[in-house]
Amino acid sequence: MQKDLKSWLEISAHSDFSIYNLPYGVFSTNQHADSRVGVALGEYIIDLWKLSPLLEEIHFDRAVFLKAELNDFIALGKSIHTAVRQRITDIFTTEDTEIQNIAKKTLIKQSEVVMHLPVKIGDYTDFYSSIEHATNVGKMFRDPENALLPNWKHLPVAYHGRASSIRVSGTDFHRPKGQIKPNDSDSPVFSPSKSLDFELEIGLIIGKNSEIGESVSTEQAENYIFGLVLFNDWSARDIQKWEYVPLGPFLAKNFFSSISPWVVTMEAMEPFKSEGPEQNPPVLDYLTFSGAKNYDIQLSVEISAENGASAIVSQTNFKYMYWNMAQQIAHHTVNGCNLNIGDILASGTISGSEPTSFGSMLELTWGGKNPIKLSENSERKFIQDFDTVTMRGFSQKEGIKIGFGEVSNKVLPSK
Amino acid sequence: MQKDLKSWLEISAHSDFSIYNLPYGVFSTNQHADSRVGVALGEYIIDLWKLSPLLEEIHFDRAVFLKAELNDFIALGKSIHTAVRQRITDIFTTEDTEIQNIAKKTLIKQSEVVMHLPVKIGDYTDFYSSIEHATNVGKMFRDPENALLPNWKHLPVAYHGRASSIRVSGTDFHRPKGQIKPNDSDSPVFSPSKSLDFELEIGLIIGKNSEIGESVSTEQAENYIFGLVLFNDWSARDIQKWEYVPLGPFLAKNFFSSISPWVVTMEAMEPFKSEGPEQNPPVLDYLTFSGAKNYDIQLSVEISAENGASAIVSQTNFKYMYWNMAQQIAHHTVNGCNLNIGDILASGTISGSEPTSFGSMLELTWGGKNPIKLSENSERKFIQDFDTVTMRGFSQKEGIKIGFGEVSNKVLPSK
Repeated sequence: MQKDLKSWLEISAHSDFSIYNLPYGVFSTNQHADSRVGVALGEYIIDLWKLSPLLEEIHFDRAVFLKAELNDFIALGKSIHTAVRQRITDIFTTEDTEIQNIAKKTLIKQSEVVMHLPVKIGDYTDFYSSIEHATNVGKMFRDPENALLPNWKHLPVAYHGRASSIRVSGTDFHRPKGQIKPNDSDSPVFSPSKSLDFELEIGLIIGKNSEIGESVSTEQAENYIFGLVLFNDWSARDIQKWEYVPLGPFLAKNFFSSISPWVVTMEAMEPFKSEGPEQNPPVLDYLTFSGAKNYDIQLSVEISAENGASAIVSQTNFKYMYWNMAQQIAHHTVNGCNLNIGDILASGTISGSEPTSFGSMLELTWGGKNPIKLSENSERKFIQDFDTVTMRGFSQKEGIKIGFGEVSNKVLPSK
Repeated sequence: MQKDLKSWLEISAHSDFSIYNLPYGVFSTNQHADSRVGVALGEYIIDLWKLSPLLEEIHFDRAVFLKAELNDFIALGKSIHTAVRQRITDIFTTEDTEIQNIAKKTLIKQSEVVMHLPVKIGDYTDFYSSIEHATNVGKMFRDPENALLPNWKHLPVAYHGRASSIRVSGTDFHRPKGQIKPNDSDSPVFSPSKSLDFELEIGLIIGKNSEIGESVSTEQAENYIFGLVLFNDWSARDIQKWEYVPLGPFLAKNFFSSISPWVVTMEAMEPFKSEGPEQNPPVLDYLTFSGAKNYDIQLSVEISAENGASAIVSQTNFKYMYWNMAQQIAHHTVNGCNLNIGDILASGTISGSEPTSFGSMLELTWGGKNPIKLSENSERKFIQDFDTVTMRGFSQKEGIKIGFGEVSNKVLPSK
């Protein structure tokens, strides 16, 4: 990483979108309703189509910047991404006032745009890679004495999720209805979920296709990641509890999921690599890896009620994950399953070891037994109608901040 | 249904593709490599782009026939589908020799084309709707005394599958590798699957988008189905057994799935509606329905070995399914999960009550305990390398036959 970069554009030291970040997103404006590709910088978005005359030394079809999703840009490959990133860095740190003046004309205030889903998502996979989360859920849903199932430390457990219902931050949604079995009954009832929950996750966006029949090694895996987003895997715990045996969660999850609009690239994340926890027992060969493969990302969840009460209910870190992303990709493809650009692999709920670092209400309130106070008069066991849940994340080190922005959604009553 | 239709084109009485069928598919030829849309009739394919001048009284953009998938045609809606179907029927039963001569020029022998995946699949969901299959699996994987879990008769259990690895009939694939836990060990080993299996299923192709937050009723559900295909949900039983708790099957399934190339429309299937089994206990209101919602489709599975040995190992019927497709769609959307055109909902393994009517090797050989003979010298517990598995299906009634063709794939050794 280049150090001591200084942009001629004024950027707050607190901004998520420093010159070191340069995340990609898709936006439109009231004046220009067609969605197109931009990069966040401070309070602004760089309109890449407008900037593209300054990128002409890099050879690619700049029409990728007029697409309503990043997939075609991603498909250009790492060498183009690296060149574009370097050139944007050069332009926004140059002392050449002529270039500055051209670049200034490509800037739009983030407050004036609508952000869209950044990628067309083919398949979505959800992992279950936090040992603290898996242990907490195992204790509550199954057997407190054997919370972690026998396979958990041998493979990164995962299941397929629903791609069609993933939406961008800012989208409201209705509380899901479904079958719930009361504890005192043998039969289910039909009801709006009474235990709607968030799950704090990081989603990785696949940056390179793999072929069917091909296995991606842990060493190669990071070349298959374009970048990261915040991911809220909204869950209805009462629906989940009744439906999930034997084939896993279905309607408890697929009503809605949400992601942050800005994709933070792996190049930006490079300085924040971190050692993960020791894996014991040792993993099979195809899951071994060398070097630091976790990432230090500070994460928080805030609940804001309609009455104005609001509280940060969880603070945790992505570096705690037992299974890292390289292992997740190696496992996902070891049987020959193919990955496509735009696929999302989410981490699973990110919980730390402290009760205040758990990544879901299920864990934070221990199944509703210990409500959380939002204010003197407001408490929550799970998420109520008109609550807004906001997840934020950033990495920070030696004065450099790389932020994810936020994924924030309001829950509306059942239809 | 019109009866006593007679085409001027010679069609064998044994053909799957009678004048009553008219299934849609996507094909290309050596001379014309661009994939495009056709309809099967007897031994021929009707090239719909070439036929489209005869369809000009129906108002739609005939460029949908030049697409490499049916999605845009499907999006035109049921009234266009009905009109196109009626017009094709009229053209191929007309006594007007001038029209016959024009229509003859649109025909290509099926033996001369390459068939492709008929739709771009957004999401793929796999149900578990045969009570016989769920009972058999429950007996073997879990508890023989409580084979059916408590939720099974209350909701059509399902999980999300992998869309990226669904391929059309004729595609070979490599035996998957993965983690397998030997019975006499606490730790898994890495190995090619030793118990590769098929699952005989029917897949429905979604024909209409539903909105996020919208629930589709059982009454409306059939309007959301464009048509049906044969579906082979290839499975690695040893990988499945170790990985599937608590979140369901993942690598045991997502290495490869396959479908037949011709989509048989619900209009063609209309005469084959059939009563399903009684559902007891009664289902919740949103799962109730009126009228016959099952379909009478005769199904078979053949295994052909490299040495020439071959046997039909299963014969069953789609009408046995406990949960019908209308219930599956109502359940899938009751929480607001949205469906998109091209999504596939597969039935789950279709097993009957007789041991010869089970839809997987797991059941047919009872976990490998009772091998099946393919010939005097060849037997199978599961599927071996270079075996070809072929599934076929058809409906027949009062001299009318509607066939699905086949889904047939050969297994290659692990890479």
